[in-house]
Amino acid sequence: MVVVEVTIIPIGTGGPSLSKYISKALEKLEDADVKYELTSSGTIIEGDLDEVLEVAKRMHENVFDQEISRVVTYLQIDDRRDKSMTIQGKKESVEKRMKDRS
Amino acid sequence: MVVVEVTIIPIGTGGPSLSKYISKALEKLEDADVKYELTSSGTIIEGDLDEVLEVAKRMHENVFDQEISRVVTYLQIDDRRDKSMTIQGKKESVEKRMKDRS
Amino acid sequence: MVVVEVTIIPIGTGGPSLSKYISKALEKLEDADVKYELTSSGTIIEGDLDEVLEVAKRMHENVFDQEISRVVTYLQIDDRRDKSMTIQGKKESVEKRMKDRS
Amino acid sequence: MVVVEVTIIPIGTGGPSLSKYISKALEKLEDADVKYELTSSGTIIEGDLDEVLEVAKRMHENVFDQEISRVVTYLQIDDRRDKSMTIQGKKESVEKRMKDRS
Repeated sequence: MVVVEVTIIPIGTGGPSLSKYISKALEKLEDADVKYELTSSGTIIEGDLDEVLEVAKRMHENVFDQEISRVVTYLQIDDRRDKSMTIQGKKESVEKRMKDRS
Repeated sequence: MVVVEVTIIPIGTGGPSLSKYISKALEKLEDADVKYELTSSGTIIEGDLDEVLEVAKRMHENVFDQEISRVVTYLQIDDRRDKSMTIQGKKESVEKRMKDRS
Repeated sequence: MVVVEVTIIPIGTGGPSLSKYISKALEKLEDADVKYELTSSGTIIEGDLDEVLEVAKRMHENVFDQEISRVVTYLQIDDRRDKSMTIQGKKESVEKRMKDRS
Repeated sequence: MVVVEVTIIPIGTGGPSLSKYISKALEKLEDADVKYELTSSGTIIEGDLDEVLEVAKRMHENVFDQEISRVVTYLQIDDRRDKSMTIQGKKESVEKRMKDRS
């Protein structure tokens, strides 16, 4: 399982607000069989690498259906194979260490 | 105000776990006067651009104190000046649109 | 056509040097039908979106064959559809404007 | 010395082309005492960490002088301290290994 952060940046929107485009693209996640979490810097998706790339591609593609002709999409793919990795597990392992020290 | 995602990647750790290093670097945030949120892809910080860069630099620098000699740090700086932007506001504007449509 | 920057970061290596892993992963590009350019921050690939994602995945996957159990891969996907975009064209359009002004 | 890739993304432009904004922001590099290289995915800068962050900030800031009210800037900071690292050195170490194997 991988944990992937997807950040979609529509170009040429004519104004600074992007939430209209992002919220539409996020609908593609609801059809897919992946866990995800919305943050203020992107969307974090957990799943099989192929599945997650497929969903990210559909989100990216969706912005072109919204009369935008250029999209810059960033993916941060974190892939760990010696043990299972999840959105929740990644965050908790850092939080646990912080708590243990304090 | 800017919203910045900081992702710190220690290189040459000898094993796949990074939480020890990350949790230590995050202590630098506790001394600083910025709002932040830990996610499973990084740390999102809200504040004045100079302040946030200064904190990010201290987090990055901290990893070298942990016997690591190479660190790759990613910053995603989102800076909007026509209206106030916050970690919470960014996320809520997307969530509100999703809710309005459903 | 898209222009994608791929940055592959092997985690848990015994030391700070990554070139051994990166150079091996880059061999996957030689078999593929895409244009690419190596920079000091990553590899820029030009091609059809599906093709490029497929190649990036093979490069990422290759690092696991080198006794590494965690890999963080960043993709910057720049996808413009109102006109053809290439590695060379993107760079030249900026350079031309700089020259015209000086 | 660090090698930093700076990618500046002006938001809310009236169309998909960004080269006008990027080329202007790049003028800030010419005044600074750092080595740099323009690629089709960003600008790679080599120098002291503080110097490079200062230049990156000036490039980012410059876009707001061009009637843009939101800018997303990505920084990839590669900082290695066991030996000197340069734009040219990073690239050559990978190229050398590829050549040695072929």
